[in-house]
Amino acid sequence: MSKKAPRRTAERILETALTMFNRFGEPNVSTTAISADMGISPGNLYYHYPAKDELVNALFERHRRSLTPLLRASGEVQDVEDAWFFMHSLFESLWEHRFIYRNLNDLLSRNRHLETQVQALIEQIVRSLQDLLDSMRRQTLTMPASEVPTMATSMVVLLTYWLSFEYAKDPRRALEPEHAQAALLRGARHVLGLLGPYMVETQRKHLQALAAAYTSRTGPG
Amino acid sequence: MSKKAPRRTAERILETALTMFNRFGEPNVSTTAISADMGISPGNLYYHYPAKDELVNALFERHRRSLTPLLRASGEVQDVEDAWFFMHSLFESLWEHRFIYRNLNDLLSRNRHLETQVQALIEQIVRSLQDLLDSMRRQTLTMPASEVPTMATSMVVLLTYWLSFEYAKDPRRALEPEHAQAALLRGARHVLGLLGPYMVETQRKHLQALAAAYTSRTGPG
Repeated sequence: MSKKAPRRTAERILETALTMFNRFGEPNVSTTAISADMGISPGNLYYHYPAKDELVNALFERHRRSLTPLLRASGEVQDVEDAWFFMHSLFESLWEHRFIYRNLNDLLSRNRHLETQVQALIEQIVRSLQDLLDSMRRQTLTMPASEVPTMATSMVVLLTYWLSFEYAKDPRRALEPEHAQAALLRGARHVLGLLGPYMVETQRKHLQALAAAYTSRTGPG
Repeated sequence: MSKKAPRRTAERILETALTMFNRFGEPNVSTTAISADMGISPGNLYYHYPAKDELVNALFERHRRSLTPLLRASGEVQDVEDAWFFMHSLFESLWEHRFIYRNLNDLLSRNRHLETQVQALIEQIVRSLQDLLDSMRRQTLTMPASEVPTMATSMVVLLTYWLSFEYAKDPRRALEPEHAQAALLRGARHVLGLLGPYMVETQRKHLQALAAAYTSRTGPG
């Protein structure tokens, strides 16, 4: 028990920090507010995380680790159904840690460790999407190899900043949990929509059907 | 002379603020630093702009006004040559006021006036790109009308966050003036690249030639 308690507290601090960062934005949440919310002393929090940046870095590392198996599986995506599932899972992971994407550049300019970590993650996502495109090209996508790098980069920008865009359009509500599903599906529809013109007819129809099924559930936009 | 001086000072304050915001990021520049840089008293600056938000709002309004004639001209874009010129002009205007795009969500969450202004500008850019697509569809683009709204939104996200993405990839150098030309051309190439598969063959070749001419000047990426 005495051995396990610190680890559990560290984990609870991370969970609380994540919830509060996502809800209010990282710049608006102090470590004191986190310890108050948990009902622990600021000193106890400080014992586990001596600075707010270390909390941010730990959460980023958790995010990166949760993404890795998914990003590695992109080479198995063969058709639009796989791609839809892949993209939706990816967006769900971004949503989990949306505080990072809401204030990405602000975080970067204040945190040197994060600067290199974010660069590495962006490169990892670009490579993963290149694998996805190469795999789909072998099956269902008529895209010239020369267009893969540009397309992968455009998809990454759309992915990485989709939640920022949702926030800019509606800062008071976009990142609240009840809007998650609609925001993620809009994101997936836009990212995969870029591949529409390269798809064989049956696949494009299937993508439209998936997008239409979404629209009827969450409204247009 | 006594009548003109205040107006000139207000204008000089805006110019200095814009340069410093672009260079160091708006959150890292105080009004005191701006007045010190200009060699005027903080009280003199305060007389013209009683709060930093008013400086930000004045610069945003200037940005919006400089974009308006360009955004209105999108309906005249007929071919890939026009589109390239349009996109490049648009990116140049975003670059001019890049401090806004570098920290967009952070600015929004602190400034209620900006919140509505940014929403209005995003809608204006979406409409402008829809007009561009509709105009190109009459001439050189084989895109179904049903795909126009989704494509216009994807283009806007790519446009609006391109400079953020450049910053995330290389925070120390991306937004320095000597990288402007390469960053803007990469942005234009990616945004217009989305239209590639919808273009008739001659237009697509022309877009590739424009992109290749750029790559030889600024290196790949």
